[in-house]
Amino acid sequence: MSFQLTILGCHSATPRVNAHPTSQVLQIKNHHFLIDCGEGTQVQMRKYKVGFAKIKHIFISHLHGDHFFGLIGLISSFGLLNRESDLHIYGPKGLKEIIELQLQVSQTRVAYKLVFHELVSTKSELIFEDKKVRVSTIPLKHRVYTNGFLFQEKESLRKLNIKTVEKYPEIEVCDYHNLKKGKDFILKDGTVLKNEVLTLDPPKPLSYAYCSDTSYNPAIIKIIKNTDLLYHEATFLEDRLELAHITGHSTALQAGKIAKAAGVKLLILGHYSNRYKDIKAFQKEAQQEFQNTLLCVEGNTFEIS
Amino acid sequence: MSFQLTILGCHSATPRVNAHPTSQVLQIKNHHFLIDCGEGTQVQMRKYKVGFAKIKHIFISHLHGDHFFGLIGLISSFGLLNRESDLHIYGPKGLKEIIELQLQVSQTRVAYKLVFHELVSTKSELIFEDKKVRVSTIPLKHRVYTNGFLFQEKESLRKLNIKTVEKYPEIEVCDYHNLKKGKDFILKDGTVLKNEVLTLDPPKPLSYAYCSDTSYNPAIIKIIKNTDLLYHEATFLEDRLELAHITGHSTALQAGKIAKAAGVKLLILGHYSNRYKDIKAFQKEAQQEFQNTLLCVEGNTFEIS
Repeated sequence: MSFQLTILGCHSATPRVNAHPTSQVLQIKNHHFLIDCGEGTQVQMRKYKVGFAKIKHIFISHLHGDHFFGLIGLISSFGLLNRESDLHIYGPKGLKEIIELQLQVSQTRVAYKLVFHELVSTKSELIFEDKKVRVSTIPLKHRVYTNGFLFQEKESLRKLNIKTVEKYPEIEVCDYHNLKKGKDFILKDGTVLKNEVLTLDPPKPLSYAYCSDTSYNPAIIKIIKNTDLLYHEATFLEDRLELAHITGHSTALQAGKIAKAAGVKLLILGHYSNRYKDIKAFQKEAQQEFQNTLLCVEGNTFEIS
Repeated sequence: MSFQLTILGCHSATPRVNAHPTSQVLQIKNHHFLIDCGEGTQVQMRKYKVGFAKIKHIFISHLHGDHFFGLIGLISSFGLLNRESDLHIYGPKGLKEIIELQLQVSQTRVAYKLVFHELVSTKSELIFEDKKVRVSTIPLKHRVYTNGFLFQEKESLRKLNIKTVEKYPEIEVCDYHNLKKGKDFILKDGTVLKNEVLTLDPPKPLSYAYCSDTSYNPAIIKIIKNTDLLYHEATFLEDRLELAHITGHSTALQAGKIAKAAGVKLLILGHYSNRYKDIKAFQKEAQQEFQNTLLCVEGNTFEIS
């Protein structure tokens, strides 16, 4: 199994020519999930060849402008481009009212169905699930109600160890599904063939945890435990620890601490304050706690397999 | 006298990497007026070095996204950048509610004063005036309530013909203001010195008419008569006259007809549909009616003097 994360923007606050606000596309199983949607996201999608029609689910972490001001434009453009398929939007209560008011005032009627899933819980909850993927919230600590999102592949069926299976003529094709689901097979003479003899482990399901924006918050560690990829905001360096605390943000070092405590495989950082000219310092600082740290850069794709 | 118009974006509908939606900055007298504010305008302002602090008045023609989706982001950024001076926004009723809802939901309190001037009249009205400039609406015909804007320099005081004035010792410095205002001077012996002998004509006041979006609408001709510069939308060419009519837009030829009938000095076109790959065709078509036609191109500045 594998997934791909493309960074459309990874800076905080005011957009600049080469510093776009937060937005990412996660390609996992047959989904293309858009995560946050700062101003200009639709242009970034065009720039990095993200097909508009593939986006069916958009996850908005919180209602600060650098995470959602691009949403109304994207929704409108979908309409102008004659989109037909439903669009699901997951985000804090209030988002629906903002979008609907703007559509109403501009007398825009989009032909597709907009389905809002408004979030209010302060506990982690399952917000999307199909046969292959599960998405849950990660309650974060910020100045306004904020959720991160945990994207998890589901365990897939076990794989037949076909060479062994074929040694037993009693096992027929119609039994395969039960074997894949992990059941043992009982021969007519009563012999039990243990499932692990007949099947192989499936590929390990992967997971991605998106955490932006948040103060240093160890409460999330149990939710993001052992994820393969963790995006954790790092708006500041330790030189502005106090400012991070006041504004509900994290330092790169704190992001490293969370990654270490959660035992993730890879940490990626973003949401850099425009104060810092050289973002390499973020990586260096986080690596004091967690070596396997990389930096989000606009246009980068992380492939996890 | 002179004014400068800088084009930040001049395309219609969905923003693209090199086709930004409508926004312009008019530098006239001591003002920098922002006219319309499509998504991404604040980044375009940075790109073309438009000082954020200089913008004190924003004029929004109508509430279609490609003309105002960038406004909330600009307002937020002004707040993040610690703006203190008042910001006046002129636009259709509904705009205030949209902006205030978003500020409220995101718990954003901007430290400066936001002053909304909501427009509802379907007749041309004066919406801004100071000693040197006057701004009036140009009611347009579009799918939603839309105004263009007419920016007019005011006639300045007459200039002293100092060589002539000095021939009359009876005229003292304290009389100069009356002369500049056009009054005659009466000598003690009763001789009337006509003002035109003592003063020279002031520079001719200039004017700019901004007309977007609109169907072909000859009713505006009397309002924009003899303006020095006319921006008129040209979303389509004559090959899509019917579509222009249905969508409440104009063709380049129609823009040329308006310019000709209004006797303007220079016509500039914009709001091109993304359907057309080569915008030169817009100029060519408008020139069938009005020779002095130029095309808006992102980043261009028109200087009128």
